[in-house]
Amino acid sequence: MYDRTAIHQVLDAASLAHVGLIAADGRPVVIPTLFGRDGEVLYLHGSVASRLVRSLAGGVDCSVEVTLVDGIVLARSVFLHSMNYRSVVVLGRAHTVEGDEKLHGLRVISEHLVPGRWDESRAPSDIELRQTAVLAVEMVEASAKIRIGGPEEEEAEDIALDIWAGVLPVRTNWGEPVGADDLADGIELSPAVRALRDRTS
Amino acid sequence: MYDRTAIHQVLDAASLAHVGLIAADGRPVVIPTLFGRDGEVLYLHGSVASRLVRSLAGGVDCSVEVTLVDGIVLARSVFLHSMNYRSVVVLGRAHTVEGDEKLHGLRVISEHLVPGRWDESRAPSDIELRQTAVLAVEMVEASAKIRIGGPEEEEAEDIALDIWAGVLPVRTNWGEPVGADDLADGIELSPAVRALRDRTS
Repeated sequence: MYDRTAIHQVLDAASLAHVGLIAADGRPVVIPTLFGRDGEVLYLHGSVASRLVRSLAGGVDCSVEVTLVDGIVLARSVFLHSMNYRSVVVLGRAHTVEGDEKLHGLRVISEHLVPGRWDESRAPSDIELRQTAVLAVEMVEASAKIRIGGPEEEEAEDIALDIWAGVLPVRTNWGEPVGADDLADGIELSPAVRALRDRTS
Repeated sequence: MYDRTAIHQVLDAASLAHVGLIAADGRPVVIPTLFGRDGEVLYLHGSVASRLVRSLAGGVDCSVEVTLVDGIVLARSVFLHSMNYRSVVVLGRAHTVEGDEKLHGLRVISEHLVPGRWDESRAPSDIELRQTAVLAVEMVEASAKIRIGGPEEEEAEDIALDIWAGVLPVRTNWGEPVGADDLADGIELSPAVRALRDRTS
């Protein structure tokens, strides 16, 4: 599927992105990273891969992939086993951003992870900003693949076998928040964290 | 971390792998795929990317990455927000396998997804085997990154702020199995599916 609304929905529902690029030695490498989306631009948090960030500074090709697993599809035949999932693969070009766009990108990444948290938190200082890299990826090409439902229809002789077939769903839920060791008494769970915890997947 | 036991544990706990390689046009691309591990070899299910499988037949560099998200780490400062996760990045060389190793690879992938399911299911026919590609990846280099625990210690003036800090855990659980539309009455959930459902994350 190339429908941008579907692509955006899958991207927005994923907590992590898997970023593929060609390392300095010419080999492909995939790195997981925090990210966020603003229109047709993805912002990637660069702290995970400072060596890659340097190679990205001039603008380089990359691929950004996200996948949400929704269930395991069990058929009678080994061959028709599958997964239910929602996946997006982006081909794009990444470059580092600075100044106002860097701060904007960090906000987009933060709001993607925990909506509302940016305004609850202490904003980054200039020193912290210098220690953080942010990449912007223009989504040049993007496609979504979504599989839902039960196993593909099998041959009559397979259906007649005494083998259970169906779907084992996967659910991702939040656990109970755990306060930091140095959290002072009387500080309550903040609205942004509470809202995220109460949001079902 | 370069400890092989830790690397194996993370790989074995992940349902999907993210495979990065250089496409025919020279650009990096990341594809999600089913996989399994046998010692220091990863087997990848090739159905997802037949065009890539062709380019892999002669043996090509690839990267295989898995990440399990365990929680969101919330600090008082935006800068120290993070995630708890377990991640492995493999640099390797992939090639297609045939004959006995292909069947073995499919079994490894199936047992990774649902342990015990291979022997419950109808084995692949020769025609089905020809329609399936399996890749073997020798793990040339592999490293694991694991983050656990609460936010990094913050400055005293940040700790004094009236902002909740801590961890919001992520839990992945199985839902109730849903039988296929054409499942005959009286066919019970199989032992392999029941065992997986009852296994907590």
